Amino acid sequence: MYQIPMSGNSFGRHFIIHTFGESHGAALGAIVDGCPAGLDFDLSFLQSELDRRRPGTNQSVSSRQEPDQVEVLSGVFQGKTLGTPIALIVRNQDQRSADYDQIQNQPRPGHADDIWRQKYGHVDHRGGGRSSGRETVSRVLGGAVAKMVLQKIYPNLKFETRIIQMGPFQNPSETQIAEALEKAKAQGESFGAQIELRIQNPPPSLGQPVFHKLKSDLAGAMMSVGATTAIEFGAGTAAGFAKGTEFHRSNQAVYGGLRGGISTGEDIVMKITMKPTSSILDVAKQGRHDPCIGLRARPVFEAMAALVLVDHHLGLNQDQFR
Amino acid sequence: MYQIPMSGNSFGRHFIIHTFGESHGAALGAIVDGCPAGLDFDLSFLQSELDRRRPGTNQSVSSRQEPDQVEVLSGVFQGKTLGTPIALIVRNQDQRSADYDQIQNQPRPGHADDIWRQKYGHVDHRGGGRSSGRETVSRVLGGAVAKMVLQKIYPNLKFETRIIQMGPFQNPSETQIAEALEKAKAQGESFGAQIELRIQNPPPSLGQPVFHKLKSDLAGAMMSVGATTAIEFGAGTAAGFAKGTEFHRSNQAVYGGLRGGISTGEDIVMKITMKPTSSILDVAKQGRHDPCIGLRARPVFEAMAALVLVDHHLGLNQDQFR
Amino acid sequence: MYQIPMSGNSFGRHFIIHTFGESHGAALGAIVDGCPAGLDFDLSFLQSELDRRRPGTNQSVSSRQEPDQVEVLSGVFQGKTLGTPIALIVRNQDQRSADYDQIQNQPRPGHADDIWRQKYGHVDHRGGGRSSGRETVSRVLGGAVAKMVLQKIYPNLKFETRIIQMGPFQNPSETQIAEALEKAKAQGESFGAQIELRIQNPPPSLGQPVFHKLKSDLAGAMMSVGATTAIEFGAGTAAGFAKGTEFHRSNQAVYGGLRGGISTGEDIVMKITMKPTSSILDVAKQGRHDPCIGLRARPVFEAMAALVLVDHHLGLNQDQFR
Amino acid sequence: MYQIPMSGNSFGRHFIIHTFGESHGAALGAIVDGCPAGLDFDLSFLQSELDRRRPGTNQSVSSRQEPDQVEVLSGVFQGKTLGTPIALIVRNQDQRSADYDQIQNQPRPGHADDIWRQKYGHVDHRGGGRSSGRETVSRVLGGAVAKMVLQKIYPNLKFETRIIQMGPFQNPSETQIAEALEKAKAQGESFGAQIELRIQNPPPSLGQPVFHKLKSDLAGAMMSVGATTAIEFGAGTAAGFAKGTEFHRSNQAVYGGLRGGISTGEDIVMKITMKPTSSILDVAKQGRHDPCIGLRARPVFEAMAALVLVDHHLGLNQDQFR
Repeated sequence: MYQIPMSGNSFGRHFIIHTFGESHGAALGAIVDGCPAGLDFDLSFLQSELDRRRPGTNQSVSSRQEPDQVEVLSGVFQGKTLGTPIALIVRNQDQRSADYDQIQNQPRPGHADDIWRQKYGHVDHRGGGRSSGRETVSRVLGGAVAKMVLQKIYPNLKFETRIIQMGPFQNPSETQIAEALEKAKAQGESFGAQIELRIQNPPPSLGQPVFHKLKSDLAGAMMSVGATTAIEFGAGTAAGFAKGTEFHRSNQAVYGGLRGGISTGEDIVMKITMKPTSSILDVAKQGRHDPCIGLRARPVFEAMAALVLVDHHLGLNQDQFR
Repeated sequence: MYQIPMSGNSFGRHFIIHTFGESHGAALGAIVDGCPAGLDFDLSFLQSELDRRRPGTNQSVSSRQEPDQVEVLSGVFQGKTLGTPIALIVRNQDQRSADYDQIQNQPRPGHADDIWRQKYGHVDHRGGGRSSGRETVSRVLGGAVAKMVLQKIYPNLKFETRIIQMGPFQNPSETQIAEALEKAKAQGESFGAQIELRIQNPPPSLGQPVFHKLKSDLAGAMMSVGATTAIEFGAGTAAGFAKGTEFHRSNQAVYGGLRGGISTGEDIVMKITMKPTSSILDVAKQGRHDPCIGLRARPVFEAMAALVLVDHHLGLNQDQFR
Repeated sequence: MYQIPMSGNSFGRHFIIHTFGESHGAALGAIVDGCPAGLDFDLSFLQSELDRRRPGTNQSVSSRQEPDQVEVLSGVFQGKTLGTPIALIVRNQDQRSADYDQIQNQPRPGHADDIWRQKYGHVDHRGGGRSSGRETVSRVLGGAVAKMVLQKIYPNLKFETRIIQMGPFQNPSETQIAEALEKAKAQGESFGAQIELRIQNPPPSLGQPVFHKLKSDLAGAMMSVGATTAIEFGAGTAAGFAKGTEFHRSNQAVYGGLRGGISTGEDIVMKITMKPTSSILDVAKQGRHDPCIGLRARPVFEAMAALVLVDHHLGLNQDQFR
Repeated sequence: MYQIPMSGNSFGRHFIIHTFGESHGAALGAIVDGCPAGLDFDLSFLQSELDRRRPGTNQSVSSRQEPDQVEVLSGVFQGKTLGTPIALIVRNQDQRSADYDQIQNQPRPGHADDIWRQKYGHVDHRGGGRSSGRETVSRVLGGAVAKMVLQKIYPNLKFETRIIQMGPFQNPSETQIAEALEKAKAQGESFGAQIELRIQNPPPSLGQPVFHKLKSDLAGAMMSVGATTAIEFGAGTAAGFAKGTEFHRSNQAVYGGLRGGISTGEDIVMKITMKPTSSILDVAKQGRHDPCIGLRARPVFEAMAALVLVDHHLGLNQDQFR
C-alpha cells in the first residue's frame, strides 16, 4: 500500500526555501530561490550561523558532535549570487543510527513517532526523519542568506533574541543559565522557555492587509518550529485584560511595532514560548538531551524572522510599475 | 505614479478562498475553489453564520445595520455543489460614506490609515477599505462552506468558542458580558478579550511535519484576524515556566491535541487574545463602536479554523495512490 | 459518494485571475488580483472587449443573444483601481436550459460530456458547465484589465490577430469569410482555422530561463483555450525541416521575437490552430452553432496573451532591490 | 546595483521538482517533493535515464564527456521512498570553463547571452548558466522518479518518442540518422527535427476543465524545453484546414487522445518541433556541437510528459473525500 508523502517543505512566496533531508540520512539542505543577483555571498557568516544552532558548542547542550560544514552547490559565482537557485547542503556526520535501532519498534514517549506511523504508515525510526530538530539546519541555511539580503538593504536592522524565562528562572543571567542547565542535564531535567525576539530598526510598510499581515506570517513561521506553544506580539496576552481607554493611550510598545498587520518602522517585538524538551523521556538520548532547546532555538527563530522579512520586502515592489 | 497592489487575498492550498470587496464598496465576497462536488449546500446555515458575525444582533454591539444577505453566483446546482468554484457575494447596504468624508484627510487614531497611506500612497478613506473588520464577511462565507464539508465527513467535530477573559472580567457570564458592554458603550470604553477555541473530536493526522504543522497554519490563520495579539496552544505561555519532568507527566491537556505539529485526535484547544478595539478613538464611530469585538470575532475564528482543517483534510490524501 | 472538484480556475502568478461560473448558472466572472493601484479603469473598453467575443454581433456567428453586461463589485473607486481585488461579474441572461433538458442523459457527440461524467461522476448538462466556450467570458474580463495595464506602461504595444487559414480558405478576406460562414451555417458545416497572433512592440526581457520561458507560458495559455490543437512560434513547424546554416542566417522572423525563452523586443509572432467546432453535431445547437469559432476566439487569445505579458512584466521587478 | 533573480525553477503542483545548478558550476540537481512514501526507488533506472540524455554515448553527438553520476541525498531509505523530499544531485565533471573565457565578453551568436545581459545585468559566461541545455539534467532526474510512480500505478503506460523529420529527412532510419549526423558534424551543419511523442495506454480523466487542461500543461511543459518551436496534438496544424463534417467523422486519431482538455484513455499523441541548434555558430563549441539535439531531447520530453501525468494523477484525488 502506498502512503501519503510529507509535503510542506517549502517556505516563502518571493524569497523561497525548499528544504530536504532526514536527521540521519546522507545530508540536509535548502535551495534558496528568489535571491537577487549581485549580492556579496558571505560564506563564513553562513557557517557561523550554522554553528550558533549547533549542539556541543558549550557543555550545557547536547554533546552530539555535528561539524555541520555547509557546501554551496549552485547560485554563487566568484563570491556573488547569480540570481539562480542557491543550493546549500550539510552532510550528516554522526548518524548514530545504532542508538535508534534498539527503539525501532517502540515509539519514543513525548515524540510524535506514533503519530507519524498512524499518518504515514511508516516511520523513519532513525531519529524522527523530518520531524527531528535537525531539520532546523535547513531553516538556518536559508535564514543566513536572508540576513545577507537584509544586511545590504537595511544596514541598521538587527535581530536580538534573549531568554526572558527559563522554567522557574526569570530573566536569567548567562551564569545562571549555565549552572541551571548543568544541573538539569545531570538530573535528566529540562526547562521550558520564553524568548523575546526583537527586530530593531525594521522598515515600515511590510505586510499585507488581509491574510498576509506581517504578524500572521511571523506567527505561522515561529509556530512551525517544533516545541513552540505560544506567540505574542507587543502586549500579547496582557491585551486581553486591558481597557481600551488605558491601552491605546499607553506607550507604543503595546503595538509591538505593527498596526493593521503592517510594520510601522518601530521595533517589532515578539514573545515566543517553548515547552520543555521531551527528550528527557527518550532512552536513546539518555544524558545527551538538550535541557533547554530555547538556547539553540534562538538562531532558528531569527532565521524564520529574516525569511519572512525578506519575503515581504521582495513582495513590496512585486507588482509595482517600473 | 503607480502604487503597490494589496495582495494576499487568498487563503488555503487545497480548499481555497479568494476574497474581495472594500468595506464601503458595492459588495464583498469569496470564491470557494476546491470544494468537492455532490455536497449538500445548506444556504440557510450559510446565512445564519453570517448573522452570527453581524453587528446589531444584540444591543451590546454596533448598531450599524447590515442585512448581509448572501447571493450564490456559481458552483451550486439543484442544491448540490458542482465541484466548480462557488462564488458568494454580499452587497453592502449601509455604506455611510458620509461619516467618513469628514475624516477623509485625518487618519483615524489607532487605525492603520496612516500606515496604508505610507505604503500604498493612497487610502480608501471610506472605512479602511480592505483593512476594516468588514472583510471578515468573506472569511465567514468561506468558513461556512468549510463547515458543511467537515459536518459531512466528521459529523462529531464541533467548534466551541467562549470568552474566558474580557478586560477585567474573568470567565464572564452572558449577563455580566451584556451589562459590562452596555456600560462600556455609554462610556466610550472598550475591552480586550481572551477566547478559548476548542475543536471537539477532530480527526487525527492533520498537519505536515515541517512548515505546515497544523499549529503553524492555525496560528497564522488566527493571527491574520485584525486585533489578535497572542495565540496559545495547550499549556501556551505557561509551558515556558515548566520543568520537563512535571510537564510531560501531567495530563494530555498541555499538548492541546497536537504532537509533532499533527493532530492526535484529542480536542484541539487554542487561546486567542484580542486587544481592545481602537474605534473608541474614532470620531466617525462615536457611539457606534463595538465595546468588545471578541464577541463578533468568535464566528470568524471558527471560520478560519474550519478553513484550515478542511484544507489539511483535503491535503491528507492529496498525493495518495488510488 | 463525493466527487472530485474541478480545479485549475486561476491563472497567473503576479497578476492573477480567479475565474468562476457555469455557462447556464446565475453569472460568470473573474477576480483580478495583483492589479496595481491608481490605474485609470476604463469600463467602456472592458465592455467593448466583452462585445468582441460575443456571438450574434454579426449574422455569421451564433444568434444566441447574450448582452453580457459587466458589473464591477470591488477594486475600483472614483474611476481608479485601489490595488485591491477587482471583482467582475456578468450575469447569464439567456440560459435556454430547456434546449438542454432533452439531452440531459445523452452526451453531445464531440463534446466532453461523457468524459466529464466519467471523471466527475456528474455533469452539469446545462451546456457543459465550466467546459463550455462561455467560460472565456472570464478570460476576456481579466484580459481587458491586463490590456489597461499594458496600455499604460507600453503605449506602443498592440495585439493583432488575423485569420490566415479558415478550412479550405487561405488568407481569406472579410467578404470571403462572411460568405463562407453564411453558407456553412446553412449547411451545418464548420471550419477549422489558423490565427496569427502578433504582439507588436513588446518589451524585451520578459520570460524566465527554465520553466517559465515566455514561450512556455504563452503556449500553455493558448492551449488552454478549448479547440486549440497547435501552437507555433516564429518558423514553427517549418523549423523541423531546416538546416542550421540556412535557418540561423535567415531573417530574424524565424525566432518569433524570442530567444532563450525571453522576449527580444521584436514583434512576438505566434500561429494558433483551432479545430472545427463540434457543435455541428449537437442537436441542441441546431442552426445556432458557430461555423468558425476562430472568429470569436481572437479576443480570447489576445486576452490570454495580455495576461501572460502583464504577469511577466510584474514578475520582472518582483525581487529587485529597491 | 542589484539585479533581478531568475525564478521559475520549480515545476508541478502536486508532484513538484525544484531545480538548481549552472552548466559549469559545482553541481546540478532536483528536489522531488510530493512523491508518495513506500515506492521502490530504482536507482539504476534513474542512472540509465540520465545516460540517455548524455552526449557522447554515440559518436553522432557532442563528444563532451559527462559521466553524470547521480547521488541521492535524501528521501530514500532502505530502497524505498520515505515521502520526504528526494534530493538528487549530479556533479559537473568537465567544466571546460577555459573554452568560455575567450568569449567572456562576446555574446555567442544565436544564443541568448546578450538577452541575459540585458535582463539580468550580468551573465554567467561559463556556458550560459541556467539557459544551457545542461539544465535538462534536472528535468530528467525528476522525470525518472515520475516514471517510477507511473510504472507502479499504470504498468501498461509507455512513452514512445521517435524522430519523424530531421531537416530534409522524413521518417529517417537509425542508419540514415547516424550517417547524416556524421556528415553534418564534419561540415558544421545542424538539423531541425520533429519528434512524435506517444503516450501509450494513459489513464482517462487526467486534466482540468479550464486552465489546467492536460493539453495545456503538456504544451507548456514541452515548450519550456530550449529549442522547441511548435507543439501539436492529434491532427495539429492540419485541423486548421479541415471541415467539421469530415474532421469529426474521421477516426479518433484527430483528437490525439484528449477531449475537453481531459485524457480519454486512448493514446495521447503529440508532435514537437525543434529548431536546428545554434551551437554551430559558437566558436567555443567548434566541432563539439550536437548536429541534432532532437536525439538527446527525447528523454527530456518524456521526462516532462511523465512529470505532467503524475502531477495530474496526484491531483486527481487531491480533494476527494476519503
